[in-house]
Amino acid sequence: MSGLLKNEWTIFVVAIIASLLTAVLTFANANAVLSFLISAIALATLATVVGQATEQLGNYMGPGATGIVQASVASMPELFVSFFALRAGLVTVVQSALVGSILANSLLIMGLAFLLGGWKNGTQRFGSEKPRAIVILMVLAVSALVVPTLADAIHTPAEAHEEALSIASARVLLLGFIASIPFSWRGGPIGETVPTTELEERPWSLARAISVLAVAGVFTAFVSDWFVQALEPTIESWHISQAFAGLVIVAIAGNAVENVVGIRLAIKNKMDYAISVVMNSSLQIALALTPILVLLSFFFTPVALTLVLPPLLVVGLALAAILSALIVYDGESNWLEGVALIGLYVMIAISFWWG
Amino acid sequence: MSGLLKNEWTIFVVAIIASLLTAVLTFANANAVLSFLISAIALATLATVVGQATEQLGNYMGPGATGIVQASVASMPELFVSFFALRAGLVTVVQSALVGSILANSLLIMGLAFLLGGWKNGTQRFGSEKPRAIVILMVLAVSALVVPTLADAIHTPAEAHEEALSIASARVLLLGFIASIPFSWRGGPIGETVPTTELEERPWSLARAISVLAVAGVFTAFVSDWFVQALEPTIESWHISQAFAGLVIVAIAGNAVENVVGIRLAIKNKMDYAISVVMNSSLQIALALTPILVLLSFFFTPVALTLVLPPLLVVGLALAAILSALIVYDGESNWLEGVALIGLYVMIAISFWWG
Amino acid sequence: MSGLLKNEWTIFVVAIIASLLTAVLTFANANAVLSFLISAIALATLATVVGQATEQLGNYMGPGATGIVQASVASMPELFVSFFALRAGLVTVVQSALVGSILANSLLIMGLAFLLGGWKNGTQRFGSEKPRAIVILMVLAVSALVVPTLADAIHTPAEAHEEALSIASARVLLLGFIASIPFSWRGGPIGETVPTTELEERPWSLARAISVLAVAGVFTAFVSDWFVQALEPTIESWHISQAFAGLVIVAIAGNAVENVVGIRLAIKNKMDYAISVVMNSSLQIALALTPILVLLSFFFTPVALTLVLPPLLVVGLALAAILSALIVYDGESNWLEGVALIGLYVMIAISFWWG
Repeated sequence: MSGLLKNEWTIFVVAIIASLLTAVLTFANANAVLSFLISAIALATLATVVGQATEQLGNYMGPGATGIVQASVASMPELFVSFFALRAGLVTVVQSALVGSILANSLLIMGLAFLLGGWKNGTQRFGSEKPRAIVILMVLAVSALVVPTLADAIHTPAEAHEEALSIASARVLLLGFIASIPFSWRGGPIGETVPTTELEERPWSLARAISVLAVAGVFTAFVSDWFVQALEPTIESWHISQAFAGLVIVAIAGNAVENVVGIRLAIKNKMDYAISVVMNSSLQIALALTPILVLLSFFFTPVALTLVLPPLLVVGLALAAILSALIVYDGESNWLEGVALIGLYVMIAISFWWG
Repeated sequence: MSGLLKNEWTIFVVAIIASLLTAVLTFANANAVLSFLISAIALATLATVVGQATEQLGNYMGPGATGIVQASVASMPELFVSFFALRAGLVTVVQSALVGSILANSLLIMGLAFLLGGWKNGTQRFGSEKPRAIVILMVLAVSALVVPTLADAIHTPAEAHEEALSIASARVLLLGFIASIPFSWRGGPIGETVPTTELEERPWSLARAISVLAVAGVFTAFVSDWFVQALEPTIESWHISQAFAGLVIVAIAGNAVENVVGIRLAIKNKMDYAISVVMNSSLQIALALTPILVLLSFFFTPVALTLVLPPLLVVGLALAAILSALIVYDGESNWLEGVALIGLYVMIAISFWWG
Repeated sequence: MSGLLKNEWTIFVVAIIASLLTAVLTFANANAVLSFLISAIALATLATVVGQATEQLGNYMGPGATGIVQASVASMPELFVSFFALRAGLVTVVQSALVGSILANSLLIMGLAFLLGGWKNGTQRFGSEKPRAIVILMVLAVSALVVPTLADAIHTPAEAHEEALSIASARVLLLGFIASIPFSWRGGPIGETVPTTELEERPWSLARAISVLAVAGVFTAFVSDWFVQALEPTIESWHISQAFAGLVIVAIAGNAVENVVGIRLAIKNKMDYAISVVMNSSLQIALALTPILVLLSFFFTPVALTLVLPPLLVVGLALAAILSALIVYDGESNWLEGVALIGLYVMIAISFWWG
């Protein structure tokens, strides 16, 4: 127990040190790649701290409120990074980071959870009702990308109205997200938080949860800005594409690292919680963060974020949704399914390597 | 009981009055939009009357014969409208009306049934064997559109033979439909009619069923013609696309309104019948009406109807088939699934708004 | 029993005679179409003999070793044909023959098994755990084609690196295949062989299994070469496309005929074995033979085999994977599902008819 508490402290301290180091490097105009690497560590650890503090806050709220707070507060790091990247005109980075966050969770983290969990515990069983509800909403979210992207790619009349179409689709997604909230109130399929006891973590006091969240939040706002500032020169220096940077690097640092807890839960054979943590994170990005960014971008950023994406990103997401559906619908997992999920992630990531 | 009987009478009387009004407006060369609106009401109510009379006729026939009669007679309104629209060269309208009828049933009506049924009754359960068989045949029907449409879009050699390819695929679909008929004889998965007792309707005499069908059939033939005549000027006056007119307006008036009974059944918690009514209607359009129209169009209309469709229509249909499959395979429904279905319908419909 | 033994002998004798006849016709520069037809018979019967001998060899090995031997030895005919066709520069034939082998197994043979098995035995049940694992790996294999093919079709930067992308994806598939092998050791989901007793065949001695395999192997090497030599003039003489020749003719002669045993097992109501035989054959082509050919082609053939395929082939395969998934996930089959599978095969095959 105290070991795990120490673990939380370690992450918090690393996050603060890495954040301060990022500040120093940024203002000293140090090597961009070094700034980027340190800021990525800062961002990933801050995202983990924010995630933990939000979970702890959930102990003091009803399940419905927790769901809403989680979706809004826990997505803060992605929201800040996306906002600063949009301000810098890096639309492709944002689009691929959003898709990449879903892929990193649904394929990489989930695959590792199934692989390592199945390796240790053999075939694992879980209640499939919640995952099925999430998969159905994910198909809705994928459709919200497929329709405008295809309308644009094949030059239908809707091509000239891609912003209006994106706003309309974003509103439908937000409605779907709002409609899913009462489900968590009724003990329904989605949005439930993992009891801190299941993670064998000591509950925090309310004051501590709020102050950790506040500190981490302020640091995240600054680090996100510096992370984005260092991103562009790093992309050039590493000769990778903007799409790959968003899809893999930004997505993993900004969102996926915090869900490593899902792997830990799978190894402990608590599959219901493991799947809930990882899939909910994907769902919040698809059904809440993405449409909110689309709607905000028309007011606050120089270039609008639409749902017209590079077609390969959308098809990769559709393949991930189909594979996830097939894997969770039977309420069983094994490590071969983990291999399939990781394999698909690798194939999609490689195809964006070249810039 | 007498209230429901009165309900049937009301619909019949509205259908007759609206039909006569349409006739007057058409011959008086009245405002096209007004003619169109009245003819749409006439068509929707006539389609409902035809549906009711076919159901009643089913009491006097074996289940196999009922299946065949239903597929042919109950599709009469769509058949007439499609025929007159093809004669007027409105191929896009017909193609999008066929797809739109399937989408309106499978997404809009089914979504409303799940939403309102789930709202009232909580999670609803149903036998998933029949819906699964229908979903499998729907995937075959979607494939019959995907293959020629893609062959055309990417300019394969088959592009030059799209009529031959469409005829061949239409024959495969009809064979699939014919193969599904004995399944209904053996009490198998598809084609079963809803017992009139389940709808709490009084059974009609055979004479009444036949005469109502005859009267409604004759009126439908005329009204369909006038409806199509008023359609083109209305499209122009409303500045909507032909595709949107077919996908939404023609589809809902010609086919979907009659399936509102499915929503009523879902609210009464008779999910097996609700799903059977709505999915069978989609299946009949996909597996019987569409290939029959393709084959007939080569003989009776100036422009041939092929299975090469606007790609966005086909992709929309494929998304609907995947979402339906995920939703019905577990034998359970809830109102959140209803929201997802309706959300997908709205997103697809909006993307065709611009002309 | 002796009747079935005689059956095995008949096939072996036909294979030898047809092979010798092919040799004579080839060296006599006889009519190419005749050479082609005889060599196709030789190839199909040799493939069946190789399949039988491999099964018999399985009696003398553990299940894991059997899986590996099966995947490598039983795929010999396809491997030889593909190799000689690549040497002759017939890349389209090889690509469509690989996809065609999967389609012929998963749609045509499986469809006939469901149709005839269901006709005789009514609704048939089977353990769906193994088929589900295979479907999941098939989705991975389909993705390995979708991603490079789409990257190429829409001209992403990866287009210029299609060979590197293909090699990387091929390695992922091979890793997936290797990961699936221990599953068969542990009595897990895939790779199990059908006990010879289930086929009511007398077990062979080890010496006989090895010598039959050796003889058939040598003959297959020569016949494959002659088959490919006669293929090109036959394509020209019949006015069919290279794609159709590979998709239908090469696929059925080289791979599908040997799996007719799956139909026999379905008629005997041994659905678990029927599905195992047919789906494993598809999986071995997708997850082992295809990536091995891709990797080998860079060293041994004038033109490299990449995973960038004609898009219509990839979409046909994706439709087949979705239909298979829907059909096997419920652990039940009936003849209407067989009709749907065969119908999809016919529609895909026809679309490649024109050259």
